[in-house]
Amino acid sequence: MEFKIKKSVLTKVLNNVQRGTASKTTTDILEGIKIDVYKDRLIFIGSDSNLTIQAKLETTNLEHGITVIETGSMVVKGRFFIEIIRKLPGEEVTIRTKDKVLVQIVSEQADFTINAYDPNNYPSMVELNEKFSLQIKGCLLKNMIEQTIVSVFKKESRPILTGVQFFLDDHQLKTVATDSHRLSQRIIPLDQVKVEGVAQGESISVVVPAKSLQEVTRIIEDEEDVHLVVDETKILFQIQDYAIYSRILEGIYPETSRLIPKNYQTKITVAAKDLEDGADRVALLANNEEQESVCLSISSEKVLFHSSQQQVGKMEEILQIKEFSGEDVAIHFNPIFLMDAVRTFKGVDISLYFNGSDKPFFMEEANPSNPIPHNFIQLITPIRTHS
Amino acid sequence: MEFKIKKSVLTKVLNNVQRGTASKTTTDILEGIKIDVYKDRLIFIGSDSNLTIQAKLETTNLEHGITVIETGSMVVKGRFFIEIIRKLPGEEVTIRTKDKVLVQIVSEQADFTINAYDPNNYPSMVELNEKFSLQIKGCLLKNMIEQTIVSVFKKESRPILTGVQFFLDDHQLKTVATDSHRLSQRIIPLDQVKVEGVAQGESISVVVPAKSLQEVTRIIEDEEDVHLVVDETKILFQIQDYAIYSRILEGIYPETSRLIPKNYQTKITVAAKDLEDGADRVALLANNEEQESVCLSISSEKVLFHSSQQQVGKMEEILQIKEFSGEDVAIHFNPIFLMDAVRTFKGVDISLYFNGSDKPFFMEEANPSNPIPHNFIQLITPIRTHS
Repeated sequence: MEFKIKKSVLTKVLNNVQRGTASKTTTDILEGIKIDVYKDRLIFIGSDSNLTIQAKLETTNLEHGITVIETGSMVVKGRFFIEIIRKLPGEEVTIRTKDKVLVQIVSEQADFTINAYDPNNYPSMVELNEKFSLQIKGCLLKNMIEQTIVSVFKKESRPILTGVQFFLDDHQLKTVATDSHRLSQRIIPLDQVKVEGVAQGESISVVVPAKSLQEVTRIIEDEEDVHLVVDETKILFQIQDYAIYSRILEGIYPETSRLIPKNYQTKITVAAKDLEDGADRVALLANNEEQESVCLSISSEKVLFHSSQQQVGKMEEILQIKEFSGEDVAIHFNPIFLMDAVRTFKGVDISLYFNGSDKPFFMEEANPSNPIPHNFIQLITPIRTHS
Repeated sequence: MEFKIKKSVLTKVLNNVQRGTASKTTTDILEGIKIDVYKDRLIFIGSDSNLTIQAKLETTNLEHGITVIETGSMVVKGRFFIEIIRKLPGEEVTIRTKDKVLVQIVSEQADFTINAYDPNNYPSMVELNEKFSLQIKGCLLKNMIEQTIVSVFKKESRPILTGVQFFLDDHQLKTVATDSHRLSQRIIPLDQVKVEGVAQGESISVVVPAKSLQEVTRIIEDEEDVHLVVDETKILFQIQDYAIYSRILEGIYPETSRLIPKNYQTKITVAAKDLEDGADRVALLANNEEQESVCLSISSEKVLFHSSQQQVGKMEEILQIKEFSGEDVAIHFNPIFLMDAVRTFKGVDISLYFNGSDKPFFMEEANPSNPIPHNFIQLITPIRTHS
């Protein structure tokens, strides 16, 4: 096989696809990137068998600067190949196989010949038996993922919690994540989603690993629609020229809707930046005896962040608030959880709702534009202290 | 003690001084930054006993925004204190001791109280018994250091080689560094240096640790003169409001001038960027059996970089040259050494001089503006190969 391509185009597609490859495997070839050259398109594949990122470049798109001289396949060592391409002089690269396991890369005066994997040994692509599909605007899907992924469980001890749940019924599409100490939930009405293959009255739960969703958000660039196609064990995100295949996590996702309080005893409203910066500072002296913890004391008089760490020092700061109602409360929590949650609001004013010092508190946009109640919510469980 | 200061001024001075503090010591207090508050100035000190960085801020300089309320001293935990200051709201910080070992930091709504070290336990400053001194333009000193420091020995097995030698005689000031595989040398004539305390006919050698010189180049900002003051065991670099004290390395620095060849058999001239980029690419497939090595083959026909690595691949690239004279030669060397050396020329054309494949080659500016022969030279020893 042999083709020419614009260096900048090749670099971008390789960097995206490379993120799908395995970093440490027993199957060496999965550290490689497969390139299939057809008359009308190039296909790039990086896969670690749980996640597969596939990119298609049409040869007819003149911006790609592609000339196909001979069709065929090759599997190159991902990281090393990318490093060579990145350091090449010139704007156009020629890549050709000299035999199945030898690839030549030429650009201006530079001429590399590197060992490659035999493409015949590369696992064949997963087939998808479509059960149902969704279509949704890229930026909206990206928001739904980014607003919830912060709360996924970071350890492997409860695998089902390491993903974000997509929940669909007759009324809404919901994304939820929880590590059992905090919970993030985002809901959109069905008029913003095109659903196919789901019967009326049916509800569906699909839990997608956080790692796969990170790649999805990285590749989504714009307003264009994203297609989600689901079968028994896998989900495909079709984003323009990229196809991201991910396994679905097995198991029952916990029922989370009952965790969200219906009422509240205390409410404050605050600017996102004030809350984030205050939490960032108070975290510097967080008590870390058992868990990282700081205190927020709310009264009609003032709202105060405070923390202290034996042998180190103490900190206190008055938080400027825009609104207060309800009862006084003092609550201990992990300041990192608060900062993670605040950042998902992207700077809008936030209302915090409390039910005493030993019940979870939750945060919502102060002036939500969406008519669905709790359409976007961040919930944090307090830390019980012995003091 | 108590003072107010502009946050940006404090942050900058702390970051500079902090680089002098010890990172891991048996003497905890040397991880701290000492702040001495006088009516007319603040003094900041960071020291690991080998290197001391001291900064002075005059209270009369309105740009510093300093108000001294009460004089005194404190020693704060360096990294932690800087992190607090960096995250403070507002533009002006108030810092006061609440007792010897308790420091309060207030800025707008934020109020920290942190434990500190007892300033009475901080080691007293080194006294300098001036033997002689030099005065030199900051940017020139910075060049002399940066052009040679690349060749210092990176391991501790030969301590004297971990520094840059400053050599002064009746004719010149020279900086030299070598790790015994490569050598860097820069010479300036004495009309660019003001010397005091050195008798006619006397020659002087002072070897300064590379780590100290890195801090010197970091702090030098402009054309202003730098004062170097030397005693038996220490050197002081006085740079504007900063004083950097460093110990001098003990031992005899090897005689290096005989290493520089007087003649050459082959000469090529090349653009710095072509040489650096070519070396960077050929290094990707450097043979790393014993040492990292690539080959440069020079003939009247062409100049070729090439390298190969078993199991991985091979690379070759024609180097565009501007001038060739002398005999054909092929020479093996460490491409990292070449790249390090090329970068010190900052983009000007470079001439390379060879004496066969088993003798060191050296590099100089193609069109040197300085009349002193070998005023700036980078020398690299070839690697002998068994092929």
